[in-house]
Amino acid sequence: SSNIRLAVIPGDGIGTEVVAEGLKVLNAAGVKSETTEYDLGARRYHASGETLPDEVLDELRGYDAILLGAVGDPSVPPGVLERELLLRLRFELDHYVNLRPVKLFPGVATPLGQAGPEDIDMIVVREGTEGPYAGAGGVMRRGTPHEIATQESLNTAYGVERVVRYAFEKALARPRRKLTLVHKTNVLTYAGDLWARTVDRLSLEFPEVETDYCHVDAASMFFVSQPQRFDVIVTDNLFGDILTDIGAAVAGGIGLAASGNVNPARTAPSMFEPVHGSAPDIAGQGKADPTATILSVAMLLDHLGHAGTAARVEQAVADDLVERQSAWTARSTREIGDDIAARVAG
Amino acid sequence: SSNIRLAVIPGDGIGTEVVAEGLKVLNAAGVKSETTEYDLGARRYHASGETLPDEVLDELRGYDAILLGAVGDPSVPPGVLERELLLRLRFELDHYVNLRPVKLFPGVATPLGQAGPEDIDMIVVREGTEGPYAGAGGVMRRGTPHEIATQESLNTAYGVERVVRYAFEKALARPRRKLTLVHKTNVLTYAGDLWARTVDRLSLEFPEVETDYCHVDAASMFFVSQPQRFDVIVTDNLFGDILTDIGAAVAGGIGLAASGNVNPARTAPSMFEPVHGSAPDIAGQGKADPTATILSVAMLLDHLGHAGTAARVEQAVADDLVERQSAWTARSTREIGDDIAARVAG
Ligand SMILES: CC(C)[C@H](C(=O)O)[C@@H](O)C(=O)O
Ligand SMILES: CC(C)[C@H](C(=O)O)[C@@H](O)C(=O)O
Repeated sequence: SSNIRLAVIPGDGIGTEVVAEGLKVLNAAGVKSETTEYDLGARRYHASGETLPDEVLDELRGYDAILLGAVGDPSVPPGVLERELLLRLRFELDHYVNLRPVKLFPGVATPLGQAGPEDIDMIVVREGTEGPYAGAGGVMRRGTPHEIATQESLNTAYGVERVVRYAFEKALARPRRKLTLVHKTNVLTYAGDLWARTVDRLSLEFPEVETDYCHVDAASMFFVSQPQRFDVIVTDNLFGDILTDIGAAVAGGIGLAASGNVNPARTAPSMFEPVHGSAPDIAGQGKADPTATILSVAMLLDHLGHAGTAARVEQAVADDLVERQSAWTARSTREIGDDIAARVAG
Repeated sequence: SSNIRLAVIPGDGIGTEVVAEGLKVLNAAGVKSETTEYDLGARRYHASGETLPDEVLDELRGYDAILLGAVGDPSVPPGVLERELLLRLRFELDHYVNLRPVKLFPGVATPLGQAGPEDIDMIVVREGTEGPYAGAGGVMRRGTPHEIATQESLNTAYGVERVVRYAFEKALARPRRKLTLVHKTNVLTYAGDLWARTVDRLSLEFPEVETDYCHVDAASMFFVSQPQRFDVIVTDNLFGDILTDIGAAVAGGIGLAASGNVNPARTAPSMFEPVHGSAPDIAGQGKADPTATILSVAMLLDHLGHAGTAARVEQAVADDLVERQSAWTARSTREIGDDIAARVAG
């Protein structure tokens, strides 16, 4: 098969370090790829004021997929890189599914004393292009005692239906076939009603899938107290952001949490990235765990039709994680990448 | 001192059962009170269509405080009792502080394998009257492929400042003197900016209080992985809802989580209630844990100036919780209430 044409955005902080290991494993897996690096993030913003120039965005549209490390730095005002780069990529490339597995691998320590791998194995299908992330809102009389600031969640039948449909399909393909909608229908009545009606309506098309509903507050609690409740979860952009960080915490930490910003209609490339940020405090020290990026590479491979290779990468990670628990010393970012690459190369 | 004039809303499901034990402990504590019961909730809604008649609301304004059990039932459409009763009470009585301690008592089992009481001891100061709970929003072309549903978060300098000020005062009175703002300033930029600027500005008035900021996704993770990070948290209505349920999960479960809907300006009575709901599945079986309600009664006493008695009730609960871990059989709702009341009576 032909080369994967891959755009790589290493970004800031540990982003560069973990992406190098992700690419190392991709190469070791024997899938041919051609990568082009894009310098985007805090460094470029400080150097030129640019976040995501239109020409760069247009070029990115031409790739098969994008691999992103992490962007952000405390020196940049909050929201600038998020809204103008990260979220703009997700919105412009129509990444309406933000796919986030929450899975406890054998051998991985969880803060939950009683939970094992059989208890934590779910996929969160987070909406990626609308809801409270739309950027709608405003401010009036800023800085005065009469200031008001608003923030609006925009939800469309079009946007909700397509992500709910995707979630039903995911649920159908898994052994438990259970889909839970998470929202806050008792308070956010307009948006909640749209989400709940959409799940009800589509459930008629997927009679094999059992559906359930859980308020976001209760779901957040159950992630800790009864993670077994969940198989596939579908939820809005903001609730999904929160839930998947709780998920990362219970499944062994943010160093293991992978994600895909997926455009299932394939009208633009999908983008894969670890859930963690740029962690400027540990950047450049070889301390970052590249595992989340490597698992994101596995998701990328799966998305591009290399399911077998993806499974091999995931298995290599799983084996590495089992060995990790009995290791005497912590390995560096590069050593972890080397070890997983060696396993993948086989 | 004069009698406490208390309005009691037992509500639905286990609400009635746990409130009875709360009142039992209140009596045992020797504080004179005069209670009047109000029949509000699903039962009344089904009987008469009424949720909160204006005359009832007016009467409630005349009490020193309100004790609420839980309202709600699956037979009522989502949002009706929440918006027309629960949230209407919080809004009309200007409960701008929703005070929720997250504290692991000695002897209580937590799902976190490594955490002890020294690790989990915080107070969440949740805004109670605005934000995403305002009820603003709408729907257009409902039920069609062109439907859009919006939900608006309304934040005012007036509303944010008063709750942040309260949180600074709480933090100042605690040994660690640390206040963490939780928001999502990098995405919800308008509202986040108002919250962040307000904390910055008030911090000048409270130089002894250390301030910190945490995105809601990271904070949700840290509730599980590093709860020690937090002392006092201030946050908006929706984030507070989610965080306090995670807090309940890590601090031993929803059966222990107390809360106060507080009007610190005392222009109307404050309302105290367990965080849990009406739990129709176990209602009427004597299985509900009344501890959260009893701890809410302690908060009520503290609010009304009976700090010593409040401390006695909390100590009685703490002692009961230590004994509970070595108990052979589970006690009924009433037995737990009896035992704690006996300790309080001393
Ligand atoms: C950086 C931020 C905009 C982003 C989000 O909120 O989606 C991050 O938290 C994530 O989960 O990918
Ligand atoms: C019942 C619901 C409206 C309420 C809320 O969201 O505030 C509840 O979850 C709570 O935390 O008291």
